[in-house]
Amino acid sequence: MTSRLTAIYHVRGDASTIAARARGIAVEQSVEMPVEAIDDSHILDDIVGRVDAISDLGDGVFEVRIALATATIAAEPGQLFNMLFGNTSLQDDVTLNDIELPADMRAAFAGPNRGIAGLRAMVDVPRRALTCGALKPQGLPPAGLADLARRMAAGGVDFIKDDHGLADQPYSPFADRVRAVAAAVREVGGNTRYVPSLSGDLDALRSQVRLARAEGIDTFMAAPMILGLPTFATLARENPDAAFFSHPTLSGLARIAPPLLYGKLFRLLGADALIYPNHGGRFGYTPATCLQLAATARAAWGAVRPSLPVPAGGMVLARVPEMLDFYGPDTLLLIGGSLLAARERLTEEVTAFVDLASRHSQG
Amino acid sequence: MTSRLTAIYHVRGDASTIAARARGIAVEQSVEMPVEAIDDSHILDDIVGRVDAISDLGDGVFEVRIALATATIAAEPGQLFNMLFGNTSLQDDVTLNDIELPADMRAAFAGPNRGIAGLRAMVDVPRRALTCGALKPQGLPPAGLADLARRMAAGGVDFIKDDHGLADQPYSPFADRVRAVAAAVREVGGNTRYVPSLSGDLDALRSQVRLARAEGIDTFMAAPMILGLPTFATLARENPDAAFFSHPTLSGLARIAPPLLYGKLFRLLGADALIYPNHGGRFGYTPATCLQLAATARAAWGAVRPSLPVPAGGMVLARVPEMLDFYGPDTLLLIGGSLLAARERLTEEVTAFVDLASRHSQG
Repeated sequence: MTSRLTAIYHVRGDASTIAARARGIAVEQSVEMPVEAIDDSHILDDIVGRVDAISDLGDGVFEVRIALATATIAAEPGQLFNMLFGNTSLQDDVTLNDIELPADMRAAFAGPNRGIAGLRAMVDVPRRALTCGALKPQGLPPAGLADLARRMAAGGVDFIKDDHGLADQPYSPFADRVRAVAAAVREVGGNTRYVPSLSGDLDALRSQVRLARAEGIDTFMAAPMILGLPTFATLARENPDAAFFSHPTLSGLARIAPPLLYGKLFRLLGADALIYPNHGGRFGYTPATCLQLAATARAAWGAVRPSLPVPAGGMVLARVPEMLDFYGPDTLLLIGGSLLAARERLTEEVTAFVDLASRHSQG
Repeated sequence: MTSRLTAIYHVRGDASTIAARARGIAVEQSVEMPVEAIDDSHILDDIVGRVDAISDLGDGVFEVRIALATATIAAEPGQLFNMLFGNTSLQDDVTLNDIELPADMRAAFAGPNRGIAGLRAMVDVPRRALTCGALKPQGLPPAGLADLARRMAAGGVDFIKDDHGLADQPYSPFADRVRAVAAAVREVGGNTRYVPSLSGDLDALRSQVRLARAEGIDTFMAAPMILGLPTFATLARENPDAAFFSHPTLSGLARIAPPLLYGKLFRLLGADALIYPNHGGRFGYTPATCLQLAATARAAWGAVRPSLPVPAGGMVLARVPEMLDFYGPDTLLLIGGSLLAARERLTEEVTAFVDLASRHSQG
């Protein structure tokens, strides 16, 4: 018997045509040709997608469960997305809402190297919510970024990540920036981890990782939708002792449900921490979407380690208690620009941030 | 003076708030932090995005022209997408509608290796529309795919591409498939080019290209949104004598206008031919979008060669005259599953396909 995963689509349509439309998706995401022109019984039985169930969710939306042969994916990360939702991403009546994977397939993709427990161990924070600041703005030379990092580390923040706009620009080359920031954070001497942003093709990424590791760095940020899904996964697999934050830039794939995209797919590729746009900030996810995303990221999923939700995008200190009530302590709070607005009081602001997280967990 | 590109966004909003919203996008896509917390005059003058113009397009939509510093991109393909539309892709009131690049930036990305004229020269077809078939379904072993290719090549088709679902699966490993298909096409002895589909990370892609080149193959298909934008560009740059077809799988980025995504962005990265969903097939692009996409792909753009539009997705022989009336002869007609439905008459069907294209150009 062939091994299959289940892809769960939400499809706008009506009761009279939904069965045909569901078969259309099953064909599109498997053989992509008229099934009546296929003779081979192995292909018909073991490769063509199979509609397992259709249920009416109301308001003209149907849940369609399609069983796709895992053989078509062959445990390749790009092929996972290609077969789940490649062409169908171009059809605007369909959302990919969820997936269910057999255990062998979850094991093949492996997921986060460290997961939530591993990230907590790295910064020696067993219980409270974790904290993260960001180095901005781009245009600042390495010495300026290093100064910000030193002052944030002095406030005891757990992670300091690069702005996702920092790449390898002439005004702040990756090598100079990473060396300067790593040295500044080391000098402070706490548990703070600097998380540089990686960019470019696999050659560039490998050379960036090598350089950063020589500086003692073991936590990295990268954008799966820009680097490419196979590339993000390769980075995680090649550095099994390192942790990876995924950044959501260019993830406005309107038709993959965010809890799935972050909480299962990016996690499966190897994201230990998932940065995503929190509700009530500059972006459009609803509170319900955010909560479901966080729950999906943390849920038990066979041997795949849980990922840490990182709600972000215009967050401010005043929202920390509300965010912790909403998300609970297995959360990484990322405050970017708003911390920097404290200017000469940056270290105090960071101290207040970490205190808020600590006090909440004792409340 | 700093070099800037212009990003043209369409923003839903109202007259009273559009100026503030436009500034918000300019900040999001450059420094991504409160501008009032930035002291450095170089950053304020040369790095922060600048709103150049806002015009009311009616129906609650505004065109916002933002000048972004090219220094932030540093000629890196992933960074181009990151700075044009990374975080803003997550904001559902905004579409990235068009870009205008300074000449030095166009030159830095280089674009297609061969372009329309080069593709025509490769298959020795100076005037008529070009033709392409597809090897499907996946699940067929290499010998079966090679048999289809032989019969299509005998019909005189210009290009035969792999189904985009063909990767490196156990039932049809890349090496076995490419060797078998390349040999079958060579035996026929015409000008037909076999276009294998590449997948995986850069290591895998390089080994696939090496193997295919040893078989005399000089035309490849790859999916920029799955492989990653830097990776697609690296492939094109490393193989300057080869041609590349871009496949649209996972390109359902609802908020980048398709004429821009394909006709400028994929083209800039190095796509000689742009496969996209034609109107009236299984996908949702309108006739107007398709026509604008084709026009953008072919338009003069400094030293960047024009790309060949490849309208596809459920095309059939009966539509060829209408498609050629619509698109004109600088088009690659791709008919996939429908050709294969001819079964034992495959060669005759392909001959009829090429004849239709030839006769139309003389009409």
